Amino acid sequence: MANSGKSYQSNLDSALFALLLDPAAAESLQAQLLDGLRRKILSSNAFCGVRLPASRVLAAELSVSRTTVQIVYDQLISEGYLVTRQGAGTFVAQELPHLSRVASVPRHPPAPVARWRPFQSALPDPALMPHAQWARHLDRAWRAPSADLLARPDPLGWYPLRAAIADHLLAWRQLACDPQQVVITSGARDAFEIIFRALLPPTTTVAIEDPCWPKMARTLMSCGARAHPVRIGPEGLDPAQIPARARAAIVTPSRHYPTGRSMPLSSRLALLEWAGRSGGVVIEDDYDSEFRYRGQPLPALAGLDRLENVLYLGSFSKLLSAALRIGYMVVPQRMLPQIAAYFDAVGGQTSLTPQPALASFMESGEFALHLRRMRRVYARRQAYLLSAMAPAQGFVELAPDAGGMHLCAGLGPKLQGRVSDREISAEAARAGLCVAALSDHCSLPHGPEALLLGYAGFDEDTLGDAARRLCALLARMG
Amino acid sequence: MANSGKSYQSNLDSALFALLLDPAAAESLQAQLLDGLRRKILSSNAFCGVRLPASRVLAAELSVSRTTVQIVYDQLISEGYLVTRQGAGTFVAQELPHLSRVASVPRHPPAPVARWRPFQSALPDPALMPHAQWARHLDRAWRAPSADLLARPDPLGWYPLRAAIADHLLAWRQLACDPQQVVITSGARDAFEIIFRALLPPTTTVAIEDPCWPKMARTLMSCGARAHPVRIGPEGLDPAQIPARARAAIVTPSRHYPTGRSMPLSSRLALLEWAGRSGGVVIEDDYDSEFRYRGQPLPALAGLDRLENVLYLGSFSKLLSAALRIGYMVVPQRMLPQIAAYFDAVGGQTSLTPQPALASFMESGEFALHLRRMRRVYARRQAYLLSAMAPAQGFVELAPDAGGMHLCAGLGPKLQGRVSDREISAEAARAGLCVAALSDHCSLPHGPEALLLGYAGFDEDTLGDAARRLCALLARMG
Repeated sequence: MANSGKSYQSNLDSALFALLLDPAAAESLQAQLLDGLRRKILSSNAFCGVRLPASRVLAAELSVSRTTVQIVYDQLISEGYLVTRQGAGTFVAQELPHLSRVASVPRHPPAPVARWRPFQSALPDPALMPHAQWARHLDRAWRAPSADLLARPDPLGWYPLRAAIADHLLAWRQLACDPQQVVITSGARDAFEIIFRALLPPTTTVAIEDPCWPKMARTLMSCGARAHPVRIGPEGLDPAQIPARARAAIVTPSRHYPTGRSMPLSSRLALLEWAGRSGGVVIEDDYDSEFRYRGQPLPALAGLDRLENVLYLGSFSKLLSAALRIGYMVVPQRMLPQIAAYFDAVGGQTSLTPQPALASFMESGEFALHLRRMRRVYARRQAYLLSAMAPAQGFVELAPDAGGMHLCAGLGPKLQGRVSDREISAEAARAGLCVAALSDHCSLPHGPEALLLGYAGFDEDTLGDAARRLCALLARMG
Repeated sequence: MANSGKSYQSNLDSALFALLLDPAAAESLQAQLLDGLRRKILSSNAFCGVRLPASRVLAAELSVSRTTVQIVYDQLISEGYLVTRQGAGTFVAQELPHLSRVASVPRHPPAPVARWRPFQSALPDPALMPHAQWARHLDRAWRAPSADLLARPDPLGWYPLRAAIADHLLAWRQLACDPQQVVITSGARDAFEIIFRALLPPTTTVAIEDPCWPKMARTLMSCGARAHPVRIGPEGLDPAQIPARARAAIVTPSRHYPTGRSMPLSSRLALLEWAGRSGGVVIEDDYDSEFRYRGQPLPALAGLDRLENVLYLGSFSKLLSAALRIGYMVVPQRMLPQIAAYFDAVGGQTSLTPQPALASFMESGEFALHLRRMRRVYARRQAYLLSAMAPAQGFVELAPDAGGMHLCAGLGPKLQGRVSDREISAEAARAGLCVAALSDHCSLPHGPEALLLGYAGFDEDTLGDAARRLCALLARMG
């Protein structure tokens, strides 16, 4: 890492290569080099003891003669700034004559890297990402990039990736769209910002599901929108409870987050009817529907709507890797001019670096094979977790789920009324487990209580060990 | 691209691999496969004529026997959905019995790729990016990523990159900071959003330079801030003209954008004095100071301030590639807790993909060598442009600039009063040249007029040809 000798070595090189010598200046090149080198050495005590570049190398880099560099090195040796070691080269002295303290800042040790803790939900297993394939696609895209990749980046995203996503949605979600309706984003927050700034008036009221993704209300607030939570029933969000002033509703119809329920067709049609009648837009967050283990998933709501009033949001953070930060939205044709105008005004934010690699990864079919493989692995992990949690019967209520990446475990008779899901979550956190409380996903009072147990991101050994610890903890609290 | 046969081939595979068969269901696997396959084929007319996977491959993928797949294929052949060609395999029929139109969307041809046009400013030459080196760093970082890379990404950025940036700033900008003060962003807009949401009250008034980056006011507005433009004089932004309600000032002290002036020490001290007195923050946008061709650049304002009240913004979009979308800000220690709390609340947005590659590219010294090489190339291109524009003497006023990536050409006596910089810009756009008008960078009335001629991004042939066309155009308009 950065505190190694190697890094400071190249950093001194970098500092010296940054020197500017002006042949037209009144001062000689030699005097300029002497002054510049002395100042660079004094600029940081991190350089103490570091080797200088060979005089030949520095001379070539600065376009001066080697003799000039040697004279300057000799001068600084005589001043005590530099020392020579027989056969090893020239080094900055360990003790400098007048070490300037101005530019030296003590470095704190880096904060420890945050590890994923067992039962973290919405996390694909980072170890199962096909890294070698992915690195090959990155290398191929960028080693000798096409002229199109070097042209002005389209703020809506790299076209072949948008086309590959359109193909994927047709194959996996029965959603037909033109690639030009697909807009690449840095994830759900970026998508919400684009939607609430480009398409809707400021301080729009938005109906959201309660419970929902805990950052939702804060994210909407940071976009200037106002969240209006609606407690969902067994059939999902009831459009009759959307306030008249609302101009948008955010829903997770395929699998409600985090309870996992899917919205029946009747509720879907009612929601589309609300949108048509009120002129509102429905935002469908379809975050992990590809991980379906049994039965046919209901097609995307946006497909039912034929992309008239529904914006569809997808993400690769759950399908592939949380590190990518690539998501997308599919936009009704009539809204595209406003989106384009917004990007013209403020520009795009999403890095182009991963986009061509992801496009060829999808075009090659490797992405579909990966999803299918993960579906098998995650289905096994869900079954394993269910069996590993068997000792907690009576404490929590667990049932197989037809899809998803976590289980939502209600509190059983041995816990109900004695302890809250939040207290269990806090106790589990002390034991190193990331068990989220369902009531922390509610902003309305008297939210339902349950524990969220993410299983997709962890192998069976880890899940087994974590389940044993959680069972013991629940038995103690019951 | 996506419309090739190859892509649809793998897309049909992908669609079939997405099928879910449930051994526990009432329907037989064979009936489920027959129904699923029929629906997939009908879902898009893009599949017409496409070859199906071999029965052996599909059987293995779906965990059914090969006989089951063969029976289903035979059934669909008899129904007219599939056809066989001797020795070539099984294909979707060209004409389908009852083609469902629901999911078929005609695809528009992609919009043409936008090429960079000569004289675009703030653009590094995409052809000179060391692509092979860059791809090697990407491949090395991701082929077999370290456990730290697979851990929970730090929303403030990949630590070794933050450390490499701290090293770079010490070497090139005489700015000393701890790596933990460096926050990785998706560029200037992202940085402004973080600053105005995390550190300042909503609807903060911000003093900005006039002229300035044209998207500045819109970007600030989209963050909820209110821009108060101050017309700059020869000494830059005068703190006496900052309104009392302002809590922030955004400046480009090293090289004012786009006039190229640098702010003298007296103005810098006055600005720091304003910040100390008013409790305001100064945001230093140091966008291209590394490209300095003569003389020593003034150190960063943030260094003079010792990072007390100044936030420093840097970017790799101008140093390396516009496609990266990686920038950074250096934050005073006392403001770090608020930044961390903001990221806790809403999460980070910047892709991790390029970060470890950029870190090792910087640590290896290749980045410093690249900057030095670009400095030589861009200095030559500036000199070349000056000579190529010699025929326009009297029409425009051009002088060598000690740094930067564009020249700011005032209107000469043969044009002044006859034609505005905006009219020239519009005429140049019709001729395929991207000559920006200085007055388009002003939001206050009676802005100064000049033409911005970016030279860094274009080779001498392109610059020479573009300069000839511009000279002819100016002569016609004069």
